[in-house]
Amino acid sequence: MDTDISFAVLGTGGIGRRTLEVSRHKDGLTPVAACDRHGVAIDFDGLDVDELLAATEGNIDNEVATDGGGAAVKQHGESRGVVASEQARASDDSIQEIIDAGAEIDAVLLALPNYEHDFIPRVADRFVDGGYSGVLVDVLKRSRVIGMLDERADAFEDAGITFVCGAGATPGFLTGAAALAAQSFVEVHEVDIWWGVGLKSGYEDNRGTVREDIAHLDGYDIETARDLSDEEIGAIVDDHDGVIEFRDMEHADDVLLERAGICDAEDVSVGGLLDVRSDEKPTTTTVSVTGTTFDGERATNTFQLDDATSMEANVNGPALGYLKTGARRNRAGEYGVFGPVELMPTF
Amino acid sequence: MDTDISFAVLGTGGIGRRTLEVSRHKDGLTPVAACDRHGVAIDFDGLDVDELLAATEGNIDNEVATDGGGAAVKQHGESRGVVASEQARASDDSIQEIIDAGAEIDAVLLALPNYEHDFIPRVADRFVDGGYSGVLVDVLKRSRVIGMLDERADAFEDAGITFVCGAGATPGFLTGAAALAAQSFVEVHEVDIWWGVGLKSGYEDNRGTVREDIAHLDGYDIETARDLSDEEIGAIVDDHDGVIEFRDMEHADDVLLERAGICDAEDVSVGGLLDVRSDEKPTTTTVSVTGTTFDGERATNTFQLDDATSMEANVNGPALGYLKTGARRNRAGEYGVFGPVELMPTF
Repeated sequence: MDTDISFAVLGTGGIGRRTLEVSRHKDGLTPVAACDRHGVAIDFDGLDVDELLAATEGNIDNEVATDGGGAAVKQHGESRGVVASEQARASDDSIQEIIDAGAEIDAVLLALPNYEHDFIPRVADRFVDGGYSGVLVDVLKRSRVIGMLDERADAFEDAGITFVCGAGATPGFLTGAAALAAQSFVEVHEVDIWWGVGLKSGYEDNRGTVREDIAHLDGYDIETARDLSDEEIGAIVDDHDGVIEFRDMEHADDVLLERAGICDAEDVSVGGLLDVRSDEKPTTTTVSVTGTTFDGERATNTFQLDDATSMEANVNGPALGYLKTGARRNRAGEYGVFGPVELMPTF
Repeated sequence: MDTDISFAVLGTGGIGRRTLEVSRHKDGLTPVAACDRHGVAIDFDGLDVDELLAATEGNIDNEVATDGGGAAVKQHGESRGVVASEQARASDDSIQEIIDAGAEIDAVLLALPNYEHDFIPRVADRFVDGGYSGVLVDVLKRSRVIGMLDERADAFEDAGITFVCGAGATPGFLTGAAALAAQSFVEVHEVDIWWGVGLKSGYEDNRGTVREDIAHLDGYDIETARDLSDEEIGAIVDDHDGVIEFRDMEHADDVLLERAGICDAEDVSVGGLLDVRSDEKPTTTTVSVTGTTFDGERATNTFQLDDATSMEANVNGPALGYLKTGARRNRAGEYGVFGPVELMPTF
């Protein structure tokens, strides 16, 4: 059943790098390509992940590409990204190089920043235009991106693309848990997703995530968060004494659970606590699903992640799992847009 | 995606009846046949579940068939089983009638007693011999049955049968939860499945389950438990003051988690508390998965079912979910034997 899957990673920031690292622990996955806006590394026999991670450490590029991934918006003298690896070479359009190699790549994880809502969808368009036929996976959080991808569902189907959206910790992992926890019930009343993240030592690697989270705060949106300098982000963190609480986040969990028929989107709430001054989680990540059983009892099932599991661990394991499942669906001829919950058993 | 699935239920004891009831709450499922050893009801437009459940209430037949399902081993003057429904008719070989109608039945839930290890496998043989091509689902618990089904995997593949085994609360629901909870980890050390069941008012409906559980106690096995009279079972319950503790049960959870690559079978433990004198659960059903994350942290993720969710709710929801998933796999041409965990995303 587990035939080997070759995959590429677009973006070599925190998520991209860890995806490569975690893939070494998974059976049947071969990383064959990685790129950022500086360059690309491709080896169909499998990348040397150790070399690539070691060479690019400290070269993480968290800045924003706004032109579809080709040219750099900001240049860093020191930050050469993936090109620091001896397996990589510089490229003016590294994403196109991945697309051109697409016949040899079963799945592509899009670990790109998404400060512009339509950045990931536009990258997907390039894969469609380039004749790619395989799996695309993103780990995005925002509800509105799903809609943009849905508009492209026919194009994906025609191209033979299976797009798996929101396959990280949340929505991915936690909506999967919600779908599972819902199985005691014939009606689901409420899904409450509450996360805790301690991000002291991981802060540098995950600046993009923090920036995206800040966009959820009152007074900010995706555009204003994108334009914040590192100093301004630091000031926001200071204002909150290092611990920022989020309520009613525009996370795609709601849309994805509704798509899969688990409950109405409006019955899903997502929030959490981010502590950027401690590696301890400020609260325990918990999924609570309240519903009524066939025999009329109202009850709440819960799924909890141990505080010792990092956000990083909870993003990358599920992302690769959903990637593998996407590859299976793709081989079975199932194309279009799939949320993680739709890749769970069809409860 | 959710094209309609027609299904049959073999056995109209507690699980079979509730499967029919719960299916009314699920989209895309049409019950078209039900049988027990007394007779069979078939309607390809969909059974009248209300009538069938009302007519057969109090007619539940928990006794044992040992000949493949045809003739009755024990006769009950009052207990006519499904024949009490006006949709049903008596039959000398009701299972064969379902097989003969198999072209119109996408999936069959085997809610039959299994005091003989090979009863379910032998029923499956009859479906193979009868040219059935579709989904077979059982809600069995015992590890050794999986091996017997595996011996038939080639026959199922040749026949076009997708056999989903152990799709109830445990293994099904709880192994699915374990597979999900494992996603934080690159190595899983231990899976602990601990259940609580309060079965006072549900005792009559679930005598078969209690009998199967007793077979797990020291001093009993599947054969000796089968031969116990109701009075002897009552005496065992009295000996334990109504609350029976089970440790290291031979539940298929271990085999199924190993099959799916989650952990070694020996690292899985299953136990629980059964209270037949109270509807309150004597302990909270909890799945604990301990592993190490990619970044070297040892941690335990947990999944808990609210005490207010009955065993019945936790068997039948998942069973129908896995049945639907099995039908999808079957349509995609995936045949053979599948554990519930293998129907989860391929983490």
